Amino acid sequence: MAQTKRVYTFGNKNAEGNGKMKELLGGKGANLAEMNLIGIPVPPGFTITTEVCAEYYKKGKEAVIAMIQPEVEKAVEQIEQLTGAQFGGKENPLLVSVRSGARASMPGMMDTILNLGLNDQAVEAITKRTGNARFAWDSYRRFVQMYGDVVLGMKPESKEDHDPFEEIIDKMKEEQNVKNDTDLSTDDLREMVKRFKAAVKKQTGMDFPTDPWEQLWGAVNAVFQSWMNDRAIYYRKLNNIPAEWGTAVNVQAMVFGNMGENSATGVCFTRDAATGEDIFNGEYLVNAQGEDVVAGIRTPQQITLEGSRRWAKAQNVSEEERRAKYPSLEEVMPQVYKELDETQQNLENYFKDMQDLEFTIQDGKLWMLQTRSGKRTGAAMVKIAMDMLEQGMIDEKTAVLRCEPAKLDELLHPVFDKGAMKNAKVLTKGLPASPGAASGPIVFFAEDAEKWANDGKKTILVRIETSPEDLKGMNVAAGILTARGGMTSHAAVVARGMGKCCVSGAGEVKIDYKTRTLTIGDTTIKEGDWISLNGTTGEVYLGQVATKAAELSGDFAKLMDLAGKYAHMKVRANADTPNDAKVAFQFGAEGIGLCRTEHMFFEGDRIKAVREMILAGDEAGRRVALAKLLPIQRGDFEQLFEVMNGYPVTVRLLDPPLHEFLPQTEKEQDEMAKDMGIPLATVKEKVESLHEVNPMLGHRGCRLGNTYPEITEMQARAIIEAAMNVKKRGIPVHVEIMVPLVGNHKELRYQKGIIDTVANEVFCERNDKIEYMVGTMIEVPRAAVTANQIAEVAEFFSFGTNDLTQMTLGFSRDDIGKFLPVYLEKGLIKNDPFQILDQNGVGQLVREAVLKGRGTRPVLKCGICGEHGGEPSSVEFCHYAGLNYVSCSPFRVPIARLAAAHAALKQQ
Amino acid sequence: MAQTKRVYTFGNKNAEGNGKMKELLGGKGANLAEMNLIGIPVPPGFTITTEVCAEYYKKGKEAVIAMIQPEVEKAVEQIEQLTGAQFGGKENPLLVSVRSGARASMPGMMDTILNLGLNDQAVEAITKRTGNARFAWDSYRRFVQMYGDVVLGMKPESKEDHDPFEEIIDKMKEEQNVKNDTDLSTDDLREMVKRFKAAVKKQTGMDFPTDPWEQLWGAVNAVFQSWMNDRAIYYRKLNNIPAEWGTAVNVQAMVFGNMGENSATGVCFTRDAATGEDIFNGEYLVNAQGEDVVAGIRTPQQITLEGSRRWAKAQNVSEEERRAKYPSLEEVMPQVYKELDETQQNLENYFKDMQDLEFTIQDGKLWMLQTRSGKRTGAAMVKIAMDMLEQGMIDEKTAVLRCEPAKLDELLHPVFDKGAMKNAKVLTKGLPASPGAASGPIVFFAEDAEKWANDGKKTILVRIETSPEDLKGMNVAAGILTARGGMTSHAAVVARGMGKCCVSGAGEVKIDYKTRTLTIGDTTIKEGDWISLNGTTGEVYLGQVATKAAELSGDFAKLMDLAGKYAHMKVRANADTPNDAKVAFQFGAEGIGLCRTEHMFFEGDRIKAVREMILAGDEAGRRVALAKLLPIQRGDFEQLFEVMNGYPVTVRLLDPPLHEFLPQTEKEQDEMAKDMGIPLATVKEKVESLHEVNPMLGHRGCRLGNTYPEITEMQARAIIEAAMNVKKRGIPVHVEIMVPLVGNHKELRYQKGIIDTVANEVFCERNDKIEYMVGTMIEVPRAAVTANQIAEVAEFFSFGTNDLTQMTLGFSRDDIGKFLPVYLEKGLIKNDPFQILDQNGVGQLVREAVLKGRGTRPVLKCGICGEHGGEPSSVEFCHYAGLNYVSCSPFRVPIARLAAAHAALKQQ
Repeated sequence: MAQTKRVYTFGNKNAEGNGKMKELLGGKGANLAEMNLIGIPVPPGFTITTEVCAEYYKKGKEAVIAMIQPEVEKAVEQIEQLTGAQFGGKENPLLVSVRSGARASMPGMMDTILNLGLNDQAVEAITKRTGNARFAWDSYRRFVQMYGDVVLGMKPESKEDHDPFEEIIDKMKEEQNVKNDTDLSTDDLREMVKRFKAAVKKQTGMDFPTDPWEQLWGAVNAVFQSWMNDRAIYYRKLNNIPAEWGTAVNVQAMVFGNMGENSATGVCFTRDAATGEDIFNGEYLVNAQGEDVVAGIRTPQQITLEGSRRWAKAQNVSEEERRAKYPSLEEVMPQVYKELDETQQNLENYFKDMQDLEFTIQDGKLWMLQTRSGKRTGAAMVKIAMDMLEQGMIDEKTAVLRCEPAKLDELLHPVFDKGAMKNAKVLTKGLPASPGAASGPIVFFAEDAEKWANDGKKTILVRIETSPEDLKGMNVAAGILTARGGMTSHAAVVARGMGKCCVSGAGEVKIDYKTRTLTIGDTTIKEGDWISLNGTTGEVYLGQVATKAAELSGDFAKLMDLAGKYAHMKVRANADTPNDAKVAFQFGAEGIGLCRTEHMFFEGDRIKAVREMILAGDEAGRRVALAKLLPIQRGDFEQLFEVMNGYPVTVRLLDPPLHEFLPQTEKEQDEMAKDMGIPLATVKEKVESLHEVNPMLGHRGCRLGNTYPEITEMQARAIIEAAMNVKKRGIPVHVEIMVPLVGNHKELRYQKGIIDTVANEVFCERNDKIEYMVGTMIEVPRAAVTANQIAEVAEFFSFGTNDLTQMTLGFSRDDIGKFLPVYLEKGLIKNDPFQILDQNGVGQLVREAVLKGRGTRPVLKCGICGEHGGEPSSVEFCHYAGLNYVSCSPFRVPIARLAAAHAALKQQ
Repeated sequence: MAQTKRVYTFGNKNAEGNGKMKELLGGKGANLAEMNLIGIPVPPGFTITTEVCAEYYKKGKEAVIAMIQPEVEKAVEQIEQLTGAQFGGKENPLLVSVRSGARASMPGMMDTILNLGLNDQAVEAITKRTGNARFAWDSYRRFVQMYGDVVLGMKPESKEDHDPFEEIIDKMKEEQNVKNDTDLSTDDLREMVKRFKAAVKKQTGMDFPTDPWEQLWGAVNAVFQSWMNDRAIYYRKLNNIPAEWGTAVNVQAMVFGNMGENSATGVCFTRDAATGEDIFNGEYLVNAQGEDVVAGIRTPQQITLEGSRRWAKAQNVSEEERRAKYPSLEEVMPQVYKELDETQQNLENYFKDMQDLEFTIQDGKLWMLQTRSGKRTGAAMVKIAMDMLEQGMIDEKTAVLRCEPAKLDELLHPVFDKGAMKNAKVLTKGLPASPGAASGPIVFFAEDAEKWANDGKKTILVRIETSPEDLKGMNVAAGILTARGGMTSHAAVVARGMGKCCVSGAGEVKIDYKTRTLTIGDTTIKEGDWISLNGTTGEVYLGQVATKAAELSGDFAKLMDLAGKYAHMKVRANADTPNDAKVAFQFGAEGIGLCRTEHMFFEGDRIKAVREMILAGDEAGRRVALAKLLPIQRGDFEQLFEVMNGYPVTVRLLDPPLHEFLPQTEKEQDEMAKDMGIPLATVKEKVESLHEVNPMLGHRGCRLGNTYPEITEMQARAIIEAAMNVKKRGIPVHVEIMVPLVGNHKELRYQKGIIDTVANEVFCERNDKIEYMVGTMIEVPRAAVTANQIAEVAEFFSFGTNDLTQMTLGFSRDDIGKFLPVYLEKGLIKNDPFQILDQNGVGQLVREAVLKGRGTRPVLKCGICGEHGGEPSSVEFCHYAGLNYVSCSPFRVPIARLAAAHAALKQQ
């Protein structure tokens, strides 16, 4: 029986593992092996597999150590052979580093332990061998500190105290009256080690381990332990990483960047992670080790000369000063630099992606410690993918998959200047409801926003929450801030639809409409005062923060073309106005998946006719008012159809409860009464009679058209007549009429009957015909459950996952603020289900409905028009659920297109 | 190939069909055949099958007549042979009756046509043969009138006019100056026939058909046509009768009750349909035909002497007058009476059920025209079933199945005296929310109802709608009337739970709290004025209507025992107080399926502690308030456990949104502020902060316990401590703790963790243990969809079908008033889904959840605790869905028990 191999060695351009074994060796271990195999200089070492981690949690520490001990000892021997040093040796002691390394890069797990193997004997031996006592003792004190913190669990004495080691360092600097660690003498370091060990003894009650093997097993144990620490568990939960994966342990011979002026350590990127430019760049420090480069104790220097010069220019450092104090590696160690440059090129070419590298130069020799795909901004992501495609490094599919859909969002909205943000005062933080950046003077009423806009002034509209009546004000405002409401509140949804920056649900914000003031903590600001909103982070700043507009590159267009080429699903937009439609069209929407007709009702004098209809006491009265709306709606639809030029346009019939069209404050009601020449009491009475306890589950959707069929008649006529008018002008038209909030097939049959009758009337009147489809939203759970029956009537399904989520989970999205944050915090729910589709709950209903619907009508067209249609993981779900298209707000169309391509490519 | 038989003859104690062929021959036809087979004198005739009706709607009139003509002609020949008369014959013309007859008795279909075959020649021949010209012409004019109305479709000339024939009769009586039809002479009748025919010619443009065959086919056609008239369609829809069933046509030789003083016609019941007493009873008229007995033109006489005497006594008619003017059939025709009495006994013995009979006596000879199971009151239903069981006529299972569960309701609530109701003024009609009868002076505020009750005065509580704060007032009121809210509104649910009469959603009622008046149309009444409510019909009367309390007989108890014997499902009650529990226990509840703990929060000073908890700014403050509630809740639970004496008690943790515990009007808020010694502004602020757009989908259910775990801790402790206290007293306890509004298994796991921790704490404190289960309501659609996961944690499921219906259908039960009536009227929905479980939608989720839940946990106990648990068809559904129990309001326990037995017996 073959023994399970648990330890994989590497070194001297040889390795037992390779880069494809990430599951077994973790990302770091696999890449260390791979670098060896392709001839990159890597300090020799070995990797203990992730499977051992699983066994550790089954069998415990002792059993696992016993199990792997022979293999580890053999692996250490191999390092000894390659380095000529001995682990625990007296003359040439081998020092090692120990690092964790899971399949995916996982912050929150164990930090690196360097210089393991040091003790009072070894430090002397190294001093003797290197003639560099300061280096030896610097390494030793670093080791005791790291090991003490990470393995022995040293903690501050109390909440008020600092890390005990840092306290010792501070005290010694004080005693010696020096500023930097580097200013301490070798004797000081010797004294420091002594005090460190005393502190360990005091807090843990045990002596600091001197046996290198004991040190090694302690470190291995700590790596495995760290897999289950709170931060790691939380991170896994957030990123959906199974606990079973486990972590590997990497043990490597130490190489030293702190051996003197001919040694250094650094990190670098094969391309620019911010812009994507194909420029090698990075930072290094001479005579340094480990985290010194990023720790900010010393100012790191640039690796390339070009980078160094750029840096100096930005920092206002003269060329003389730069060369004297901050020379580039290219200048300082030209030979090593050349080797590093070749190595980075090799690694990028080999891994075919931008690499994030760590290296150490020991006494003039370059060692690579890590290579991995580098994190990058959205802009860089697109540019690098398209450049590499251009350069022939990757193929189209890979280029598409390299671009993370969600990150495209960064490219689509104006952004704050980073420097400006640093200096601004953060007032509070709300939900990042709609990305982007906006600054402006605040107003509290939509009509004020309009007035100011007419005077050419920009505004930030601040409301407790918004309603459809605020639409025009929202449209002219630069940004929107609300005190209530979640990521899918009216403000958030409309703002995203408009591509407008919005921070919603900023709970600390107290708004007083009377005094027109906004209070956050101690700060009170009034109408006209400036604030700035970061819709990408939810931060609210006092005053103006400079922004810059996002620019879309040619690479972006290339990426979108590729996405379209590989996606199976079409992407449509939710667009209510011709302007929305134009934006959507520009972003590549192949149709409108949801036109909310009621959003047209608020413009100009329309609302008056709508209100007349609502106030009418009988059908005849309603018909009079509807007759006024007919030409207006018809005109709107004509424009929409023209813009979409033959792409499908799904028009949803009237959906919201009627009370949304009536003003809720007495002042506005009075205005309305005067405007319409009716008593205030009449308006109030109607508002009262339309009041509902749970309007979400009330008299809305097709329930309106079923109780007042004349509304459906008017809307059907407006749609059909508009389509025929546009067709007459020679423009192709593709009409889909959508009935909302259907819960049973009889409702849909009744509505379809009305629509078909009206359509036939219009056809007869004009002696012409057009094609049209009648379908329904699937947004009531019952509709999903009885989809087989509903598909008898419906020619298409469009999943309204906003409402479907509300009803399936019993979550009113306007009211989740009180418990959702707690639920997320306690892990009772993984994501805000209004942002990321609840695949297990809502998703089951969607899959079931598609299945049942196509059981009845095999060619049934299925799409989604909820907010989820623009969220990548939800788009992927839609692909697997067999939907024909997703529809989302215009500004998310590119994201959805890319996500759809990803889904299709992943399925391949 | 065997020819399909389409016409079945009967007569002279012989028949081609029989009583079991109701599907083919209709109820009437099958029983006519059966009566022949058992030797009952029935006029000979034949039945055209229901299948012909189906063919009629496929192939049309002409084709069907052609198809059945040979068989019908042969059947008519057989009548001719048996009667010696000839259809269309000149000397002894055969007259026939034509009646419709579907599988189920169906009002709304074609009326009977009598005397078919008459024309100007036949009337003379009959005159000659009988020597009774008046009889002949009376029959003739009846025929023309019936045939004209039913077959020829004669209608009033305009809306203002009467039936054209009735107008002619009235005019002739005026001309002849007589009062009764019977006072018209033979010549008058002759003239009448002439005028009738002229009227037919005038309105239809066609002569009245004189050919008997033409008459017959016309009548047959009319029967088939009537299957599709509006009333019939509506009736079928209401009663779930498929259109495919079709109707049969029964053609029979006429027998004449109008041939003189030795002839008569009547209807009778083999037992008393009102009380169930085993007394033969009925009414008859001498020298009369068809509908004369029930038409009310002459006062009908009693059949039995005993019945006649009883009637006279009730009507204040002296024995002399009775004998002279209203003698019984027993006295008038003793021989025929004896034969009738024997026949009714035979028929009842044969059909083994109370029979509703029609008969005609022609010249001293008795003919039976119909027998069918008689309709009866709830009380009669129970008594007859138990008597027949006693009498050995039927077995236990039949006796149980004979009793319709829904009709038990009549027995359980006080009822109005029928006579008193007739004389009362009906003010309006609302929804029959909770059956029973109540009279009293009206009050508009719950606290007034309490005050009046303290003064010993009864009240009817009138509210626009009720809220939990009104509970005490509702509890002391005699009845409840609300202007808003449906059958499952707060008022309705609570009232049914209390077994208290309630009319809800009386939309015409305008309530003015300020002036304390109630206006319906022109009538305005004020506080203290009396009204009466009929909760069984929804009618609201002005003033006091006398009521009588329902009395439960020994028969009722017997029936319940039998139900318990045959049911598979247990029946529990929804009971929140010890008093509810006692009532439920008396009605035979085998446990409490739902104890809504929050209903205990309103009594006495408790609400103050609850409000303290809500107002507390932090967990510490909440814990202080909860500590006050703990002993109170524990006490309540102890009482409940004691009453239920070892039967399972399911306690649901806090469910409603917290705002329900705070007063909503400023006045009450002010009182609360004073009471608690805090500023009014604080109360208002809290009310405002708890406001939700859709409270139904908001911060409630386990979302409370998940955000404020200390609430769950307190409740869990109260439950466990109470159970242990009761157990200590030697009383067995069976505790089930139920977590409401669970949508995902993590929520339940978290709550169960809290409960288990608290339970273990209590066990340690007391050094003792008890068994308890933790389960969940399945009321959020997502819970049903993910039941497999939830069952990993839940030890039982209780389907909360009220909320499950709200969320699955997207119907807020508080808001359905605006569209549900329209939906019901337009047939867009069959039933109020809050009354009768929506089996196709909600039911699918229930079945799926049971399946998935038991897939995970095979022994999972499943029940239902929504309102549907007391509705018979829903109880039947629960049986088939495999539930272990249903739970309903105490007063519906007997109904549920019987329905459960029905379901089990039907499945056998």
